[in-house]
Amino acid sequence: MSTLECPYSGRFEQTERTTPKRSRERVTYERAESYRVLDEALFVDLAFVGPDGAPRVLPTFHVRVGDTLYLHGSTGSSMGLGGREGFPVSVTATVVDGLVFSKSWFHHSMNYRSVVVHANARLVEDDDERWNVFKALIDRFAEGRSDRSREASPKENAMSALLAIPLEEVSIKQRAGGPVEEPEDEDLPFDNGVANVRTLVTGRL
Amino acid sequence: MSTLECPYSGRFEQTERTTPKRSRERVTYERAESYRVLDEALFVDLAFVGPDGAPRVLPTFHVRVGDTLYLHGSTGSSMGLGGREGFPVSVTATVVDGLVFSKSWFHHSMNYRSVVVHANARLVEDDDERWNVFKALIDRFAEGRSDRSREASPKENAMSALLAIPLEEVSIKQRAGGPVEEPEDEDLPFDNGVANVRTLVTGRL
Repeated sequence: MSTLECPYSGRFEQTERTTPKRSRERVTYERAESYRVLDEALFVDLAFVGPDGAPRVLPTFHVRVGDTLYLHGSTGSSMGLGGREGFPVSVTATVVDGLVFSKSWFHHSMNYRSVVVHANARLVEDDDERWNVFKALIDRFAEGRSDRSREASPKENAMSALLAIPLEEVSIKQRAGGPVEEPEDEDLPFDNGVANVRTLVTGRL
Repeated sequence: MSTLECPYSGRFEQTERTTPKRSRERVTYERAESYRVLDEALFVDLAFVGPDGAPRVLPTFHVRVGDTLYLHGSTGSSMGLGGREGFPVSVTATVVDGLVFSKSWFHHSMNYRSVVVHANARLVEDDDERWNVFKALIDRFAEGRSDRSREASPKENAMSALLAIPLEEVSIKQRAGGPVEEPEDEDLPFDNGVANVRTLVTGRL
C-alpha cells in the first residue's frame, strides 16, 4: 500500500485497557493498519452503558475522516445521546479473512483483523462538520456518490445524529496464515488449510 | 424454510431495553429469524462493563445450541470472567445483505439483519456441556468437521473458556428491499437501486 493511499503511520499509545491478557502476540497498535480495517468494515458495533448500568451494543454505519470515527444515528435513538457530551463508548470493527482448519479441534481458528476503540464520544453539532461527514458517509457507498444524489434538506439534516469518536485509544488484533499443528498431529490423516472469506459487493451505483 | 431446517417459532417477549425508540417498524422479536442470523454470522460482538465502569466490546466466535448462545474465549482473557457468574452482557450479530442507493443522500441505507441479545452470562463448567459445545463450535467451520479432526486433549480443554448466554431477551432489526424515494425526487436524473452484499467462503474442509 503506497503512502498516497494511506498517509497514516506510527502507533497508538498502549493503555491498560488496550493491553490484552491473552494472545498478546496478536495485538498491535499500528495506526495505518487500524484505519484500513475501519475503512473496509461495512459497519461497526457501538457499546455503551445503559441507564440501568447494563451494557448495550448495536451496529451502526460509520466513516473515518482523518483521526476521527463518525457514527450515524437517528436523533433520539437508543444511542441515548440526547445532549450527552463526552460519554464513554467502545467501538469495534472486524473483517474476517478466513476459516482456519487444523488437524486438531483446538487449533481451529479464524483469520481476521479486528479494531477496538475506547473513547469519550461527542455529539457533532457544528454545521460544516456535519455536512462534511454526511457527504463522506454517502461517498462510502461508492466513490463520488454524494455528487450523484440529492443533498440533504435542512429537515432531513435535522433528523440525523452524528457521534464523533476520537481515534486515540485504539488497538488492532489480527491473525493471518495457515493452521498451527502440534508436532504429534502432523501425520494424522486429516486435511488442513484455510478457507478464504471475502465480502462481495456487486452493483454499486 | 421448512420446520425441519428451523424448528423454532414464536416471539421473544419484548422488554424495555429491546423496545426501539426509533425505526420501530424495523424491529421484531421472531425467534426463528433471530436464530437464522446468529447461525449465519461469522462472529458476534460481546459487550460488557469493565472494572472501571466503561463499556468494553470485542468480537468472539460463537455457536447457538438450542436456546443458548455460546461464546468461545480463553481462560482469563479480557472477557474478565474468572469465576464471575451471571454477569450482564449484550451481544450482537449482524449480516449485511445490501447497500441501498437512493436518489437522495438521506435515503441511502443498508439492507441488513441484526440481532441484539441482553442477558446474564454464565461460565460453562459442566464437562459434558463443554464437550458438546466445543464439538458444535468445530462443526460451524464445516459440517461434520469435528469428526475429521483430533478431539481436544484434557490440557487443551482446560485452556478454553465458554460463556453461555440464554436467548430470552432478544430482538431483531432488519431492512430489506429497494430504495425509498421522496415523491419529488422520482424524476431526478440519478440512478438508484441495491448493490448486493454476500459473504463468500471458499475451500471449507
